[in-house]
Amino acid sequence: MRITQVITRDVRFPTSRTLAGSDALHPSPDYSAAYVILKTDDPNGLEGHALSFTAGRGTEVVLAGVRAVAPLVIGKSLEGIVADFLGFWRSLVGDGQLRWIGPEKGVIHLAMSAVINAVWDLYAKSEGKPLWKLLVDMPPEKLVAALEFRYLADAISPQEALEILQKNYATRNQREAEMRATGYPAYTTSVGWLGYSDAKLKQLCQEAIAEGWTHAKIKVGGNLKDDIRRAALVRQELGPDRKLMMDANQAWDVPTAMDWVKHLAEFNPWWIEEPTSPDDVWGHSVIAKAIAPIGIASGEQVQNRVIFKQLLQLNAIRFCQIDACRLASVNEIVPVMLMAAKFGVAVCPHAGGVGLCEYVQHYSFFDYIAVSGTLENRVVEYIDHLHEHFLDPVVIRNGRYMPPTAPGFSITMRPKSLDEYEFPGGPVWRS
Amino acid sequence: MRITQVITRDVRFPTSRTLAGSDALHPSPDYSAAYVILKTDDPNGLEGHALSFTAGRGTEVVLAGVRAVAPLVIGKSLEGIVADFLGFWRSLVGDGQLRWIGPEKGVIHLAMSAVINAVWDLYAKSEGKPLWKLLVDMPPEKLVAALEFRYLADAISPQEALEILQKNYATRNQREAEMRATGYPAYTTSVGWLGYSDAKLKQLCQEAIAEGWTHAKIKVGGNLKDDIRRAALVRQELGPDRKLMMDANQAWDVPTAMDWVKHLAEFNPWWIEEPTSPDDVWGHSVIAKAIAPIGIASGEQVQNRVIFKQLLQLNAIRFCQIDACRLASVNEIVPVMLMAAKFGVAVCPHAGGVGLCEYVQHYSFFDYIAVSGTLENRVVEYIDHLHEHFLDPVVIRNGRYMPPTAPGFSITMRPKSLDEYEFPGGPVWRS
Repeated sequence: MRITQVITRDVRFPTSRTLAGSDALHPSPDYSAAYVILKTDDPNGLEGHALSFTAGRGTEVVLAGVRAVAPLVIGKSLEGIVADFLGFWRSLVGDGQLRWIGPEKGVIHLAMSAVINAVWDLYAKSEGKPLWKLLVDMPPEKLVAALEFRYLADAISPQEALEILQKNYATRNQREAEMRATGYPAYTTSVGWLGYSDAKLKQLCQEAIAEGWTHAKIKVGGNLKDDIRRAALVRQELGPDRKLMMDANQAWDVPTAMDWVKHLAEFNPWWIEEPTSPDDVWGHSVIAKAIAPIGIASGEQVQNRVIFKQLLQLNAIRFCQIDACRLASVNEIVPVMLMAAKFGVAVCPHAGGVGLCEYVQHYSFFDYIAVSGTLENRVVEYIDHLHEHFLDPVVIRNGRYMPPTAPGFSITMRPKSLDEYEFPGGPVWRS
Repeated sequence: MRITQVITRDVRFPTSRTLAGSDALHPSPDYSAAYVILKTDDPNGLEGHALSFTAGRGTEVVLAGVRAVAPLVIGKSLEGIVADFLGFWRSLVGDGQLRWIGPEKGVIHLAMSAVINAVWDLYAKSEGKPLWKLLVDMPPEKLVAALEFRYLADAISPQEALEILQKNYATRNQREAEMRATGYPAYTTSVGWLGYSDAKLKQLCQEAIAEGWTHAKIKVGGNLKDDIRRAALVRQELGPDRKLMMDANQAWDVPTAMDWVKHLAEFNPWWIEEPTSPDDVWGHSVIAKAIAPIGIASGEQVQNRVIFKQLLQLNAIRFCQIDACRLASVNEIVPVMLMAAKFGVAVCPHAGGVGLCEYVQHYSFFDYIAVSGTLENRVVEYIDHLHEHFLDPVVIRNGRYMPPTAPGFSITMRPKSLDEYEFPGGPVWRS
């Protein structure tokens, strides 16, 4: 089966009209998707689908990146790719001309991610398995051979990675059965967008508790007085035992973060997310020491495995928030999960946006079954919007993700949604 | 004067046909420019010109980024921008939707750089001064107010920056006169591209010495045996006193870098450039300790001021190779130069490519006259190709850059070159 065509779609949801998604640095995002379809010559019309999540303007730039990558993919056979997946990955990510505009970061990496995620979707569909199950069943040697360890040698070797996977391989069936029975724990970010009023915040907390949620996250970093008032309100609604997370979305510099978090400590936050620039590894390590035992969470804008490596080496994060689009797919994300396992850091994927919940559940099922073998301190983000646009949307039961069963990466959008929300020509945007 | 239009041009030079520019990770670049023209309503037709250097494929992606930024610029007056330059800078770089596809890195940052460099070019032209002279004459308070210190608080404060500038302000005229008389020291990279044969390497060394060059740089990192043979050859040509630099272009992981450099130490390299991933701050700091007294140089792919801050905080680099396109123009690069001055690290800009020599000379003249006040351990890269495409090309005399005198940023290309090398429609590419 050969890839014959790469189709790009610019899909945007007008979320800025409701302030859903508002935070300190992104006051009015339109949750969007740089959407990719890999057409093939498969007689049954098999296609690989994927998207990179974006925030409105700029989606077209990521798609320009996808079109720059497309010639490196068209004509390749799925069998050939799978036989040397790392070679294929490097032929894209390491392209001697394209790498200059990264390397391995920002637009071109988001574009690589979309294309390579679509290849994994195609692969999983061709095997008739959801992606998590494809990974769980893959012999550890074969999986390790597909992973990019370049620049990671001072943190993990392929041999160490293999040993982690092998240790869990024999007992994977019991954890898979457990996941199918009870699902993977989640938390909700739907309550605390920065643009929401106190009354709405309170109401959403009460609804979340009624639905069985045990963790909640609020946005902070705009104004300290507001943060204290909102944190007090949410902590009162949650009671002392449910977990409260706080997300600053990079609002602070290093000294400000240390000071601001001190004022919020009385509300017992479980983690502080993105206290400063996602690029500031050393800054995170300094803040981490100052605010312990409160842990730092980061990852949604961590650009690649090299930054994650350093965050782990310097004990700068206690929660590793891998993102399914920011890094270049399974080949780069699984090495990060393996490093996190080695360093004893919990993988709690970033989700929300559009399609991120659908994507990251696959990584967390795989993490529990094949990598970490534990659920301790682990939760997957969940936000309850835009799922209706997917053919195989996430299923949440009692505040937990249930494993998807349909083949692929769960990221195929309904054709009607692709058309209606297309930017700028779709009916939603023309009106 | 208002900006009325943003024009984008895709200009590529077929350098891959000669292997000029070949290195370990970029075997066949076509030196290219994502070129930007800001049209204005000025009655004399004043325009701002700039480019972001690229390596061929991907130039069109950077230009898509420029077009995404353009609506934030069109309609703005130069007077309004200059009155609150930092506010203008943040309205672009911090755009709440566009920042998701960075933030402050990769394609979108290269695009911001091109647009903001074009604004500085327009500003300098409107003042009738070359950019370096505009900066040198600007009162320190005004300059500091235009600079971005966000995320730098743990390394430098605006007050410290002001003090550095003020200290040099009174004596600036004598250093300016010195620069006009004798120029700024340079080094050449033209001798040692990885794709060149030993015979060509030798011949180019001899020519460079005859032309008065005292520093030379070779590419390493492909194959250790080849590197040793080439380093020995070049060291023999240079003699013991001229300085030899080695550039690995990110070829190694951390342990390999430490080992490989040990084998090259006997040829007495002055610096090792880009030993590993430009994102690996901690890795650079580990390598730096291991290979001292050989210093590390890095910067051409350092994505923003936050990574430079950490490289300086961790003593990871001894040579700070600012790049005129990678960071978002004067407002971000001057803070890096001020940090380098505070930390005692030499600024030795990255140049070559196309237009980079034209750009960075302005920073080095400004550095000597207004920031560091010293030439010790400082050299600007020089590569002798593609200068003929610029209206105001660099002038090299006795291996030193001479200060440009024409107003602007020296980056305006000849209209004929823009047309001939336009990709894919220009005659050079059609043939």
